[in-house]
Amino acid sequence: MRSYTVVGAGAVGLLYGARLAAAGHAVRWVLASQADHVRAHGISVASVEGDVFLAPTDVEVYDDASSVPASEVVLVALKTTANARLDELVAPAVADGATIAMFQNGLGVEDRVHRAVPRAGDVVGAMCFVCARRTGPGAVDHIDYGAVTVGSFLGRPEAATALVDDLVAAGVTATAVDDLATARWRKLVWNIPFNGLSVVLDASTDELLASPPARQLVRDLMDEVIVAATACGARIPASFRDEMLSTTDAMTPYAPSMKLDHDAGRPMEIEAIYDAPLSSASAVGSPMAVVSALRDQLRFLDRRVDPADVRR
Amino acid sequence: MRSYTVVGAGAVGLLYGARLAAAGHAVRWVLASQADHVRAHGISVASVEGDVFLAPTDVEVYDDASSVPASEVVLVALKTTANARLDELVAPAVADGATIAMFQNGLGVEDRVHRAVPRAGDVVGAMCFVCARRTGPGAVDHIDYGAVTVGSFLGRPEAATALVDDLVAAGVTATAVDDLATARWRKLVWNIPFNGLSVVLDASTDELLASPPARQLVRDLMDEVIVAATACGARIPASFRDEMLSTTDAMTPYAPSMKLDHDAGRPMEIEAIYDAPLSSASAVGSPMAVVSALRDQLRFLDRRVDPADVRR
Repeated sequence: MRSYTVVGAGAVGLLYGARLAAAGHAVRWVLASQADHVRAHGISVASVEGDVFLAPTDVEVYDDASSVPASEVVLVALKTTANARLDELVAPAVADGATIAMFQNGLGVEDRVHRAVPRAGDVVGAMCFVCARRTGPGAVDHIDYGAVTVGSFLGRPEAATALVDDLVAAGVTATAVDDLATARWRKLVWNIPFNGLSVVLDASTDELLASPPARQLVRDLMDEVIVAATACGARIPASFRDEMLSTTDAMTPYAPSMKLDHDAGRPMEIEAIYDAPLSSASAVGSPMAVVSALRDQLRFLDRRVDPADVRR
Repeated sequence: MRSYTVVGAGAVGLLYGARLAAAGHAVRWVLASQADHVRAHGISVASVEGDVFLAPTDVEVYDDASSVPASEVVLVALKTTANARLDELVAPAVADGATIAMFQNGLGVEDRVHRAVPRAGDVVGAMCFVCARRTGPGAVDHIDYGAVTVGSFLGRPEAATALVDDLVAAGVTATAVDDLATARWRKLVWNIPFNGLSVVLDASTDELLASPPARQLVRDLMDEVIVAATACGARIPASFRDEMLSTTDAMTPYAPSMKLDHDAGRPMEIEAIYDAPLSSASAVGSPMAVVSALRDQLRFLDRRVDPADVRR
């Protein structure tokens, strides 16, 4: 058993943190605005893969990163919109040599935390293929899927493997990958079309795929991302686009996280999911014109919200 | 003085038809669902360039194209969404040798009416740079601008010049052009970004231009249209994009016609404004990727409505 600190308690932090806690790991929760509620009521996960309830006496709650003891792994499940404040929200929780696990969307998040917290022993990226939403303080509804892919940013596969072993022992489908960049780009093949279009067209995944023009646009966006990803050195087979479409066809109708954020008045993860990939693609001479247009539409629709809402 | 038949009494048909009538031309109105109201109450134009009121006794109203006497000019101001029914809505009103003037948006509308009504003596295209909206049966609010550009589809400049002369004498700013295709593409440089984005982003022209990312997207779309237009043989100077942006900056904040249509539950003019230009551009090897994405978004949002609503 290892010690974990979970920073950021949105759907992802609550779901995987609760599974690790239920499996016997010492999990410390940095919960900000949810702290008092969780101290009183615990954490509840309603899940297609089995519910979890952590009673108040079983939950070690902290208000901020500076007060939490040193853990072996710091699991960062903040929205990327909070990444400008990693030195404040995450760094104080990281002891020398600890592993930082970035349970976030987008590109460039490992590099960012590595620069913000250089004393980490390793930085791993974790991509969650999961349909889940936070339904209230300390409460999450896990609707479908749930697999996690983990890769090391610093080229030390042991850190990724150790996290995968803990997740698998906790009942999570998890896989270690050699090539983190490829895994990040593969997730973007889904995130770029579905997150953005769900917001701009005010539609769920099934509505988009049931409409021939929207399905065509999803396909075009996926193709554009795969071309850029390949130019950036990622290895994505030609069949991947159709595989993603079939997976989504089979998925419970779902509003992606960016749509949930926008509908709730929270800022959208435009920088990590759009700006960073666009910038990487441009740098290798493979601009993504349609992705860029979708990004501009999202920027138009994005609204500033109170910084307190940025934490999840 | 000449005789005119106006088919389609949306903002454009009412505005220019009323000016021609006020100038002394014999104007016959084919009004479909607005016929009874106009017979009882006449036609009212509230205009920045001077109001016009045509009393019931001064308005020659017909219910459909088959009952109207032969006129020298048939002014078609139907929405292009009705163009599949030109043989029913327009053809019966056209006498041998008459001029058909297409007061419509988009590309390919002259070719379409020429094929549907081959007995016309000439077909001219008229592009209206006007901010106007129909406010009720027989009533239009003319908010800003109003210039009309006219070109002959069959290469007979006299037909265009005759229409321009009538419009100018009626107080309308009008210009004849040699190259109808260039004029059509120039109008698309404005229509393609502003009509589509106003619907997809639920925004007026000033909101789009005040937002840096939306302004950038307007600029990118205009550039894509200008490249395709040039490949199609249209002559559009490099300065035209910035000219269009400045013109729109100076415009009264405005909801383009496609937004008015969509908000009112009417079908949008996607075929004429997007499909036809995309098809022409592809045919010369100059695909418009971002325009195509915007078209797909509009197709997703388009809703079928009762065919009775197609006439304006």
